[in-house]
Amino acid sequence: MVARYFEDYAVGAIFECGKVVADEAEIIAFASRYDPQPFHIDSVLAAHGPYGGLIASGWHTIALTMRRLVEQYLSEASSLGSPGIDEVRWLKPVRPGDELRVRVVVLDARPSRSKPDRGLIRASIEVGNQRGELVLTMVAMNLTLLRTPSA
Amino acid sequence: MVARYFEDYAVGAIFECGKVVADEAEIIAFASRYDPQPFHIDSVLAAHGPYGGLIASGWHTIALTMRRLVEQYLSEASSLGSPGIDEVRWLKPVRPGDELRVRVVVLDARPSRSKPDRGLIRASIEVGNQRGELVLTMVAMNLTLLRTPSA
Repeated sequence: MVARYFEDYAVGAIFECGKVVADEAEIIAFASRYDPQPFHIDSVLAAHGPYGGLIASGWHTIALTMRRLVEQYLSEASSLGSPGIDEVRWLKPVRPGDELRVRVVVLDARPSRSKPDRGLIRASIEVGNQRGELVLTMVAMNLTLLRTPSA
Repeated sequence: MVARYFEDYAVGAIFECGKVVADEAEIIAFASRYDPQPFHIDSVLAAHGPYGGLIASGWHTIALTMRRLVEQYLSEASSLGSPGIDEVRWLKPVRPGDELRVRVVVLDARPSRSKPDRGLIRASIEVGNQRGELVLTMVAMNLTLLRTPSA
């Protein structure tokens, strides 16, 4: 992992965060615990449901995305967590075997006024599938340490 | 579970969705797979980290919340999934053993213009802890079947 700090997240910078496959067994396991709706946990019922087959919980799609963000966008050296997320949009269903690609575009980077050791990064998270369709977008906020705290 | 339809989600209605405890082993297991940052997965490192101890991944807090929503707010009879979520705010850390209480307030309910069998419900999701502090708020959208489709 690269050690990144606030100064390394330039507005307009793009981070390609790699791929992850939505595995059927994991889709069912995640949803059985956290989102047990028929179209997420039972392929037979799902076939006759609103999506014509099993689809991943939207929260599972985000969880798979988060893993890519932790490995390729955030940095252990500087990550202080997040105050929130805006505009989560699940644009297309994610089905078993779909390969997701995660991309981040930095929208805004502001040093904190009250705490000189950190700043807030806003970024657009874009998740596509193997057919080039966007399946998930959201705007993430992340608190990040500065390499060189301001005076 | 109660079978609910679009007509049953009146604007202003409040749904008390029960409690769930954030278990330490599950906090670590969830984050090890989906959000492996030190303050979510390693209690020793977390003690010296920005939160002074282990805290749940914000996505884990939402996943625990979602389970309460599936059991106490949504209905298998009518739930068609969600196009998105707005204004996710993680207001306070969730620590091992914290007991979360989930509450929903219906903000808006609009029949679909293009599909007469369904409507969109917007609701404020509020999650508090055993000390009466809000730890998570978000605004959820859910597509829901009508009991009696409009003409």
